[in-house]
Amino acid sequence: MRLTRAQVDQYRALRRKEGRAATGEFLLEGWRALTAAIAADAPIVDVAVRTDEVDRPELEPLKKRGTAIGTISERDLGRISATEHAQGVVARVKIVRHQIGALFGPGDRLLLALVAVSDPGNVGTIIRTADWFGAGGVLLGRGCVEPFNEKVVRATAGSLFHIPIVDEVELLEVLAQAKATGFRVVVAAAGGSVSLSDWRPAKRNVLVVGSEAHGVSADIRDSADVTLAIPRYGRAESLNAGVAAAILLAHTR
Amino acid sequence: MRLTRAQVDQYRALRRKEGRAATGEFLLEGWRALTAAIAADAPIVDVAVRTDEVDRPELEPLKKRGTAIGTISERDLGRISATEHAQGVVARVKIVRHQIGALFGPGDRLLLALVAVSDPGNVGTIIRTADWFGAGGVLLGRGCVEPFNEKVVRATAGSLFHIPIVDEVELLEVLAQAKATGFRVVVAAAGGSVSLSDWRPAKRNVLVVGSEAHGVSADIRDSADVTLAIPRYGRAESLNAGVAAAILLAHTR
Repeated sequence: MRLTRAQVDQYRALRRKEGRAATGEFLLEGWRALTAAIAADAPIVDVAVRTDEVDRPELEPLKKRGTAIGTISERDLGRISATEHAQGVVARVKIVRHQIGALFGPGDRLLLALVAVSDPGNVGTIIRTADWFGAGGVLLGRGCVEPFNEKVVRATAGSLFHIPIVDEVELLEVLAQAKATGFRVVVAAAGGSVSLSDWRPAKRNVLVVGSEAHGVSADIRDSADVTLAIPRYGRAESLNAGVAAAILLAHTR
Repeated sequence: MRLTRAQVDQYRALRRKEGRAATGEFLLEGWRALTAAIAADAPIVDVAVRTDEVDRPELEPLKKRGTAIGTISERDLGRISATEHAQGVVARVKIVRHQIGALFGPGDRLLLALVAVSDPGNVGTIIRTADWFGAGGVLLGRGCVEPFNEKVVRATAGSLFHIPIVDEVELLEVLAQAKATGFRVVVAAAGGSVSLSDWRPAKRNVLVVGSEAHGVSADIRDSADVTLAIPRYGRAESLNAGVAAAILLAHTR
C-alpha cells in the first residue's frame, strides 16, 4: 500500500525532536540500518520502501512477522530522508528507554559517560566504538545531542540497537550511584593526574569524556577516582572527543 | 584597505580544488586556525578581516611582518566562508609540498598512511591525532580527500601546520621504499593475523589504515610486515577509520 500524505508527514515529523518526543518513535534510514534493527529485534513500527525496492530480501523477516510495509515515491522519500541520496527505505522504530540501574548490575563492567558532547557524528561514532569494545552502556549527560537525532542514528551504524543508551543523565548524581555499586569513576582530562600509560583499569569502570571545547566540569572532575591524561608527543592542541573515548576504551580492554 | 570584488573572488576560488591547484594556495578560516598558522610560521599570503575585527590582537604578528591585511564586509565573508557562521577572518596560505624522502630520515619514526579515506572530517581528525602522537608525517594515498579541502583544514585544527602531509601518494611503491629504509609496514585490517594487544611496535613503523567501507586493498595487505586486528568485544560491525587510526597511534606510543 502506498503511503498517504498523512503517513509521509508522520515519518517526516520524526526528523524533529518534538516529533520524536510526541510519538516515542525515531526514524531509521537505509538498508544497513534496517538490517541491524531487524537482527537486534528492535521494535520496528512500520517501514516505507521505494516502489522499485519492495522485493529486497532484507524485507523478508519483516514480512514474516507481519510488520506493515508501505511503498513510497522517490520524491516523498526525499522529503523524509535527511541524506542527500535517500537509500530506498525508511522505518519508524519505537524508542526503548533503559533504566540506569540496569547498567549497574554485578560483575566486571565498562560504562562510558559523555559530558555535553554535542556533535551528532561524534556521539554516534562513540556509541559504535563503545559497542565494539563491549561496553555495557553509554550515559549521555545533559548538553549531549539526543541519541535519536538522525545524524547520531546514522553514525552509530546499527550499534544503537546493541548497547543501552541513557540520555539526559544527571551525571554527578549518577556517577555517585555508580561509585556506590563499586565502579571506579575515571575522568579523561587534559592535565589529568595519571598518564594513560600508567593506568591499570579496575574491574568496574565508568569512563567519563567531555567535549573537546569545554572538557569536563570541575564538579565532575572532583567526583573522579582517577583523572587520566592521554600523553601528548606532538603539538596538537587537543584530541577529538571520539578519539579520546576510543583510546580510553581500547586501553581499558 | 577594503578587498575589491576581484580579491573576494580570488579567496572564493580557493574553495574549489581547481582554484587551489591553479594558485598553489588554500583557504584558512577563523581565528584559531590563523593563530596556529602564525605560530607555525606558515606562508600566509594575505588576510581578510571583517571590518569590526581589525584591531584583534591575533593580527599583531602579521602587522609586524608586513603581511597584507584587508577588510571585508560580513556579506563578502559569507560568500567566501564555507561555515554557516563565518568567524570574522579568512586567509590565503601557500601550500607547502613535502618530499616523501624527507619522512624517511634516520632514527625512530612513526608514519601514518591512509588508503582511500574520503571523508574530510575523518581525514582532518586523523591528521590531528597523528600530530598529537608525534607522528613524523601522514601519507594520503590516491582516493583520499585532498588535505587542503576546507573541511579537512578545519578538522585538523591547526595540525596541518605541525606535521608534513603528502597527498596523491602511490602507496604500494612508497611502502616498498619505506621498507627499504628499515620501516615495518603495519596494516590495520579486519581479520589481521596479530591482535593489537599482542603487538610490540618496532622502532620505525608505518601504520596503514584504510577506509571503513573498503578497508585496505589486497596488494597493500600483501606488502605488510604485520596485519593487525583491533580486538572486538561487542557487536559493532566496524570501527570508524579515525578511531582505528587513533587506537593504533596510541598503542604504538
